[in-house]
Amino acid sequence: MILTLLSDFGLSDVYVAVMKGTIAQINPTLTMIDLTHQVPPQDIAAARFHLMNAYPYFPAGTVHIAVVDPSVGSLRRAIAIQLESGFLVAPDNGLVSGVLSQNSAIAAVELTNPFYWRTSSPSTTFHGRDIFAPIGAHLASGVPIRELGTEIGLRTIIHLPIANPTCIGNTIWGVIQAIDHFGNLITNISGDEVAGKSWSVSLENSTYPSKSTYSDSEPGEILALVGSHGWVEIAASRDNAQRQLNLKWGSAISVVMDGT
Amino acid sequence: MILTLLSDFGLSDVYVAVMKGTIAQINPTLTMIDLTHQVPPQDIAAARFHLMNAYPYFPAGTVHIAVVDPSVGSLRRAIAIQLESGFLVAPDNGLVSGVLSQNSAIAAVELTNPFYWRTSSPSTTFHGRDIFAPIGAHLASGVPIRELGTEIGLRTIIHLPIANPTCIGNTIWGVIQAIDHFGNLITNISGDEVAGKSWSVSLENSTYPSKSTYSDSEPGEILALVGSHGWVEIAASRDNAQRQLNLKWGSAISVVMDGT
Amino acid sequence: MILTLLSDFGLSDVYVAVMKGTIAQINPTLTMIDLTHQVPPQDIAAARFHLMNAYPYFPAGTVHIAVVDPSVGSLRRAIAIQLESGFLVAPDNGLVSGVLSQNSAIAAVELTNPFYWRTSSPSTTFHGRDIFAPIGAHLASGVPIRELGTEIGLRTIIHLPIANPTCIGNTIWGVIQAIDHFGNLITNISGDEVAGKSWSVSLENSTYPSKSTYSDSEPGEILALVGSHGWVEIAASRDNAQRQLNLKWGSAISVVMDGT
Repeated sequence: MILTLLSDFGLSDVYVAVMKGTIAQINPTLTMIDLTHQVPPQDIAAARFHLMNAYPYFPAGTVHIAVVDPSVGSLRRAIAIQLESGFLVAPDNGLVSGVLSQNSAIAAVELTNPFYWRTSSPSTTFHGRDIFAPIGAHLASGVPIRELGTEIGLRTIIHLPIANPTCIGNTIWGVIQAIDHFGNLITNISGDEVAGKSWSVSLENSTYPSKSTYSDSEPGEILALVGSHGWVEIAASRDNAQRQLNLKWGSAISVVMDGT
Repeated sequence: MILTLLSDFGLSDVYVAVMKGTIAQINPTLTMIDLTHQVPPQDIAAARFHLMNAYPYFPAGTVHIAVVDPSVGSLRRAIAIQLESGFLVAPDNGLVSGVLSQNSAIAAVELTNPFYWRTSSPSTTFHGRDIFAPIGAHLASGVPIRELGTEIGLRTIIHLPIANPTCIGNTIWGVIQAIDHFGNLITNISGDEVAGKSWSVSLENSTYPSKSTYSDSEPGEILALVGSHGWVEIAASRDNAQRQLNLKWGSAISVVMDGT
Repeated sequence: MILTLLSDFGLSDVYVAVMKGTIAQINPTLTMIDLTHQVPPQDIAAARFHLMNAYPYFPAGTVHIAVVDPSVGSLRRAIAIQLESGFLVAPDNGLVSGVLSQNSAIAAVELTNPFYWRTSSPSTTFHGRDIFAPIGAHLASGVPIRELGTEIGLRTIIHLPIANPTCIGNTIWGVIQAIDHFGNLITNISGDEVAGKSWSVSLENSTYPSKSTYSDSEPGEILALVGSHGWVEIAASRDNAQRQLNLKWGSAISVVMDGT
């Protein structure tokens, strides 16, 4: 059975390894795959975006443990969710809300049963090791989700407020919802909105044409396309769009569709 | 069987992958888990700290290969150690001394039997590939430790001199022994020393109160707490304590217990 | 069966994880090992060097997926190659040419059979997920290479032009072909050329002696040696040679053999 891990712990410390060792102590046959551990510290929105994008590519039954947890030790809930296609284990702070917006959930519990924790007196600072990792290992080993705690209403799970794009006439207004490693600027406008149409991206006083691939432009040229995650994105051919345009998370952009 | 790897090789080169391939050539069924490969180059003290902290969280019988080896090619010994709960394979330069200070060792050997190396004429610069990785793979595959070389006295293994904290009256004097990814400053004072007491940390002219969790303070505020590794540490709520305080490895700090 | 992954995707995004999930959807029992994902963006020469260096250390039958693909979406071919000792899956842009210069190939195909892709209408930007990862998973699961597409001539595969070193009298002229994590400067001159000889490296007006190991010099001193990958390299004892000498990829160097 496969178990993934996502966090803001970085790879310089042994925190991720300690979670993996804790999982292996419970079930050494599980296969562990890192989603990423380089979420910017405490950036729940970025973690939500990564988890949502990676989720559909894993086999049915995969357990995803996600720990970006600025309020660890406070009263925020620790939860597990069973979906039709997998499981999520995370703090209830909005992190899972991207996956939930695109997939059907079956049941959710608050992780109140210490029998499945690493210790009944968990650290106040490292629930990744003491609660989330062992819960994930038990779920991946076949423990039914309702064993793990008190069932909670799916509607009580916290959702991050990501504004939906607005469509006015032939213009869709959106925002940059993530910036990837190559400096590509990923908007919150779905590729479905522009499928089969002729369109461009408008930024301040400039307009950038849409292309079907990065290599359809001259090196350094800014272009718009539907990226591999399925969102409209702004890229620079063989270059870094974020550095060229100096945009950031939340910056407004618009997509203009050619009139018909 | 599980095998972990720790080094200062970084992840930009293929050195770590080459060690893993070498292990898989000997036994492709082993599960390999990275502790970290981002130990600062040649920083034996940091490697010692990471290995000591990760060790207790792995299943019995796990083999830990640790390679931070500034004197590779010189006369320093290459060793393997059998403990009650696992195995260590490393250069004899102090790297294993943290684990040995907290766990019972059974036997140790100098790795003098080239039958278990990758080649009988190992590279002078990459014992990780030619000696430590294959030795770890053989240990994890069931080869008895005494097959691997000449038995050595446990007391001959090199220990790093980490000064113990000093207690004078109601004050414990210690040092920063590590700084983590979040900028939390980890001291060499055990959480056991302050358990159940009211205490604070004193730094130059300032005093910082102890809290039970990061979120018990206002954002940016400096606090002291017992961290997840079990040591007294100094943190900044939702911020980076190291940048705020400009302390470094070895900086002196003191813990003051309230009088009774 | 073992499958390795190499890319320029970095570890901050979930691209690598998405490839691994895609592989696990096809065959969850495969063992996946990262070569490196920190190839400088779109640097085919660096990727070629890493793949060539890691290749010999993996078990027979290992499938290596390598994705540094600046021309994704254009007409460049996607290929798979069967060698005596393993398989390569990559874009046909020179990336595999280092391995091919040192190992015997048996057959190669262009990946034209969409039955083995993730989808018959692959993304124009992420062939790593939609073509290379699933092809690798199928190869590692036993699908014969000729099922995957149209056979192509081995001589049609693109080779990167890495100039061979030139020998004039007792001097070998070469270039820096890679720089590792420690700042060691790796030349394109094979250690075999200097084996058993007395030699030094000449750079502008300075000469640096050859040593057998890093620790044979004083801290900070520049030295030359045959590194663990088997190439002549220039290092600084306990220091960073690249920063000291300010050389870069392609910089000319010469090795001078003592007269006899």
